Amino acid sequence: MQPKLTLVGAGPGDGELITLKGIRALRQADVVLYDDLANDSLLEFAPEHALKTYVGKRAGRVSFTQDEINTLIVRLAQEHGHVVRLKGGDPYVFGRGFEEYEYARQYGIQCEVVPGVSSSIAVPASQGIPVTSRGVSESFWVITGTTRNGELSDDLRLAVQSKATVVVLMGLSKVSEICAMYCQAGRGHLPMAVVQNGTRVDEQCVLGQVWNIPQLVAEQGVGAPAVLIIGEVVSLHPSYLAECLRNVSMAY
Amino acid sequence: MQPKLTLVGAGPGDGELITLKGIRALRQADVVLYDDLANDSLLEFAPEHALKTYVGKRAGRVSFTQDEINTLIVRLAQEHGHVVRLKGGDPYVFGRGFEEYEYARQYGIQCEVVPGVSSSIAVPASQGIPVTSRGVSESFWVITGTTRNGELSDDLRLAVQSKATVVVLMGLSKVSEICAMYCQAGRGHLPMAVVQNGTRVDEQCVLGQVWNIPQLVAEQGVGAPAVLIIGEVVSLHPSYLAECLRNVSMAY
Repeated sequence: MQPKLTLVGAGPGDGELITLKGIRALRQADVVLYDDLANDSLLEFAPEHALKTYVGKRAGRVSFTQDEINTLIVRLAQEHGHVVRLKGGDPYVFGRGFEEYEYARQYGIQCEVVPGVSSSIAVPASQGIPVTSRGVSESFWVITGTTRNGELSDDLRLAVQSKATVVVLMGLSKVSEICAMYCQAGRGHLPMAVVQNGTRVDEQCVLGQVWNIPQLVAEQGVGAPAVLIIGEVVSLHPSYLAECLRNVSMAY
Repeated sequence: MQPKLTLVGAGPGDGELITLKGIRALRQADVVLYDDLANDSLLEFAPEHALKTYVGKRAGRVSFTQDEINTLIVRLAQEHGHVVRLKGGDPYVFGRGFEEYEYARQYGIQCEVVPGVSSSIAVPASQGIPVTSRGVSESFWVITGTTRNGELSDDLRLAVQSKATVVVLMGLSKVSEICAMYCQAGRGHLPMAVVQNGTRVDEQCVLGQVWNIPQLVAEQGVGAPAVLIIGEVVSLHPSYLAECLRNVSMAY
């Protein structure tokens, strides 16, 4: 028996947005460790004999620390063989995939990474928003809303000055702070979208400008997981103009 | 017959890095328009009756302008039904996917986008470089090296000051200019990688620091398509230290 770890990107939520390579890894799994953002239907690709264990942080279930997940990966690989670590989106876009890889590698476990469709690109696309568009945006900048020390990332302070499309993952709880930074920099007029459960059947989107997004998010009861998208490309959303007009008319 | 356009992300090069949803679209195609960066093996998923036409810019073949591709999509959808536009990486990360979508939509053609694995994330991962890693990088910024006016993107001027992992696509011909910008900003010491044909069997990687990358790229004969990766995360590459030592010893 050869201990092995494969980090697999499960994609942004839609169960069909996993890769062929990811499916192949699942079919050869002896253990699947999965978290919230991975679509549960993907577990059906794993063999019947495979152990399937949830290691996410959903309310009401036992939650594991990162250290516990790391040691679990190593122990299960040594005891059972091939561990597939199924992670929402792409394994190396936040989510601590590299730490898991490095930890397992230090124990001599063969490691592989299967990249996935990142929600940073696919969730905007699901709403008709391209992260780049010729003449509108020449770049996109993906930033975590949840840093190690709980503060907003310094990168955001520079991002508010840039012309990049800014995509914030895991940032819903900081949306008011983030919008305030843009407003203080005189950029409160920028188009902005907040998308909950992107690419899933229960996807929900709030469209507005940076200055009124916090209020709209509160009124419309948007919850996590959500992707924040800030920049001129948001105005390419087919309902952007109509939504902005509706928001203005409701304000008067 | 229902005219339809599906933009499908073919992934970064490895033929297994397409999604299940992308395969399903290909299986239902009447026409496949594909470009260079898509893996040719993917065409085998399309039915035998489907027209398969190359519309990329490879040397020695007729090349199409963007306007020609747009009108081709509309005509073929009206004449044959379902056009699958297979694009390397993700359809909305540069590559003008949104323009094709909007053009077809104006002609009343039903349009859909199937996101793909972006080379901006998967090519670094293929070399063992995570675009983000807790404590090392809290964001990544993906910038095109090829703007409409042929100049370097203004976004790069801000990017050289940031702590983000900077990923430049289609930027190999500008590598000297880009590195000079970093050096002028006093950041020539940053780790940098240049990866040609990432995720393909002929993948090739040059590792160094920003200041010596242009020379290493020239010496090692790296060509397009290539992804540039700049930032501290590059030092997480398993061979980074050894390569830097080798480069220094060769210089003396």
